[in-house]
Amino acid sequence: MGAEYPRVHADQSASFRLKAPDAQKVVLDIMATKYDMAKGADGFWTARTKPLVPGFHYYQLWVDGVSMNDPGSETFFGVGRQFSGIEIPEKGVDFYDAKDVPHGDIRAHWYYSRITGQWRRCFVYAPAGYDTSVNKRYPVLYLQHGGGEDERGWPMQGRVNFIMDNLLAAHKAVPMIVVMDRGYATRAGDSEAATLAPPRPAQDTAAARQAMAARFAERMKVFEDVVISELIPMIDSTYRTLSDKNHRAIAGLSMGGMQAFSIGLNHLDKFTWIGGFSGAGNPFSGQPFNPATDYNGVLKDADEFNKKVKLVWVGIGTAEPEQMYRGVHGFHESLEKAGIRHVYWESPGTSHEWQTWRRDLYDFAPRLFRD
Amino acid sequence: MGAEYPRVHADQSASFRLKAPDAQKVVLDIMATKYDMAKGADGFWTARTKPLVPGFHYYQLWVDGVSMNDPGSETFFGVGRQFSGIEIPEKGVDFYDAKDVPHGDIRAHWYYSRITGQWRRCFVYAPAGYDTSVNKRYPVLYLQHGGGEDERGWPMQGRVNFIMDNLLAAHKAVPMIVVMDRGYATRAGDSEAATLAPPRPAQDTAAARQAMAARFAERMKVFEDVVISELIPMIDSTYRTLSDKNHRAIAGLSMGGMQAFSIGLNHLDKFTWIGGFSGAGNPFSGQPFNPATDYNGVLKDADEFNKKVKLVWVGIGTAEPEQMYRGVHGFHESLEKAGIRHVYWESPGTSHEWQTWRRDLYDFAPRLFRD
Repeated sequence: MGAEYPRVHADQSASFRLKAPDAQKVVLDIMATKYDMAKGADGFWTARTKPLVPGFHYYQLWVDGVSMNDPGSETFFGVGRQFSGIEIPEKGVDFYDAKDVPHGDIRAHWYYSRITGQWRRCFVYAPAGYDTSVNKRYPVLYLQHGGGEDERGWPMQGRVNFIMDNLLAAHKAVPMIVVMDRGYATRAGDSEAATLAPPRPAQDTAAARQAMAARFAERMKVFEDVVISELIPMIDSTYRTLSDKNHRAIAGLSMGGMQAFSIGLNHLDKFTWIGGFSGAGNPFSGQPFNPATDYNGVLKDADEFNKKVKLVWVGIGTAEPEQMYRGVHGFHESLEKAGIRHVYWESPGTSHEWQTWRRDLYDFAPRLFRD
Repeated sequence: MGAEYPRVHADQSASFRLKAPDAQKVVLDIMATKYDMAKGADGFWTARTKPLVPGFHYYQLWVDGVSMNDPGSETFFGVGRQFSGIEIPEKGVDFYDAKDVPHGDIRAHWYYSRITGQWRRCFVYAPAGYDTSVNKRYPVLYLQHGGGEDERGWPMQGRVNFIMDNLLAAHKAVPMIVVMDRGYATRAGDSEAATLAPPRPAQDTAAARQAMAARFAERMKVFEDVVISELIPMIDSTYRTLSDKNHRAIAGLSMGGMQAFSIGLNHLDKFTWIGGFSGAGNPFSGQPFNPATDYNGVLKDADEFNKKVKLVWVGIGTAEPEQMYRGVHGFHESLEKAGIRHVYWESPGTSHEWQTWRRDLYDFAPRLFRD
């Protein structure tokens, strides 16, 4: 934003600064690394990171043990609250930048959900030309954020509009509408705040973990009901959509990937294009994925599945935490073994972060709605 | 958001909480009042305010002398950065709430500005029915945020969409498009970051103040050029607008009000409806307003002006800081004395805050585009 701090250097390291003359200790916390900041005579604390992998990184400052946002940077809803973020450019890569091409717009829609008893906001990307091609109908991609983020994730951190604008201008993708809903839902009357995953159990016992998993699965079911019974009908009646199953896709990242597989595979009458970005198709039961029985057995007969489903897309960053990499890679192997046709894609050198998911979308979207 | 803290009580006081076991001192800072927070044995600091006037209030927490956002609440771009905000409901008042009426949407548009050499984002409210009434053309209100805020102010803090939805559903206003642009601009090549007002002079001398005022005036001129030469043509070519002067309005709050008068009065061939919400028509010269000479003398001949201009609207909150109240009220008196027909409106009991400006819009918008 042209601000002096935070500042990204040519070697992709970044410098941060905070004025805190009375603080005892200030720590910069970025990409799972903590840097002790040094206090200058002027009361400013500063730190410079090692070179950082390109992309968008959440970060926080710890001031005397309290996590705070950097007043010098923009904040983004992630990790369950507004959080500081910084963008490290990737040399020679501009597929997610604003360029001199026709631009679509992102529309904020509010709709009332009877299921949750609440007003919900979703964002809708309408491609350039949508308003002038008044007789044209468009396929729709439903695209979900990850756990701890919300419907602002793809428009803000993900830069979904610039990615789609650039793909469309290069004729690399079919013009489509992209719908980004809020991935949280609880039933009307449920007193639990639905902004995030269910609260962690006070005691970490097997029974408590199971109860929490059950609560999570129940919420995911409520969200599925919202998507199927409220969101899709609202979108199909508000936008000029192609509303058959061959023109509707669902994808998401992390938790949103799990949701995409769950909602997609449970409703193959509504979706035939499904993608998971760093989010495997493990069911919410917490049990290992079993293609023969999971998702009501729709994967059991691979030939039939492969005929019916146009695309299954699975992606993961090579630098993601071991457990995530293993989960998604294992899902891919299970699909392979079961004879389920799918695309498996790895983002080189990136972790469980937005750079992975931007690249995922850039590979995934061009494959959609082709015959 | 259903969160436990911050919590608004029945008497309109609010309780705040922050976990900071290692902090020495935590202060809640809201509505120009500082509350020392009390530390509990559990490491949580808490405070409860006195009853607060209804509306949206920015607030901050001072932790060992550092201003930080409350992790328990949403943040809003204000005061030059992301800032915590809390909403105190006003009993019996729902004109800015989401209600069961047809909803318009808010669209994020990116456009390249040759004047500034940068991509700019503006938000556009399209009323319900815009997409289906494909032969209908709409008048346009250009609506600006205040200093320290940005184009997100009206959509987020201001709730412009709900105000317009409710007015339109009640047939109290003419369906219109509302455009909210970023009120900052510097010329291409200018190295000064244009996110905010120019930096304060290091030394507070008369000469330094004058130089800063000149810099501010120059920036305002750049913004005027962007609006006239880039924004309006972009909107008129992108949306189904009525593009004559009698179907174009400009208004804004605080700094945005000054911009509205300046841009509006300097371009009466483009605007005939002008409003200032807590922002007077004082020119950027820093000199007292003089209807006989300011704005190229367009106010000199009151009869001619009154024939040409459809609406001049001036508003202020009764609880605003004395200097602001006097400035806006004095502007109103000058107009009165000069015989300039205008509406002067006071928001009872509210200060230089969003509740004033929501009420302003609610009074202003229904007057627009009437014959």
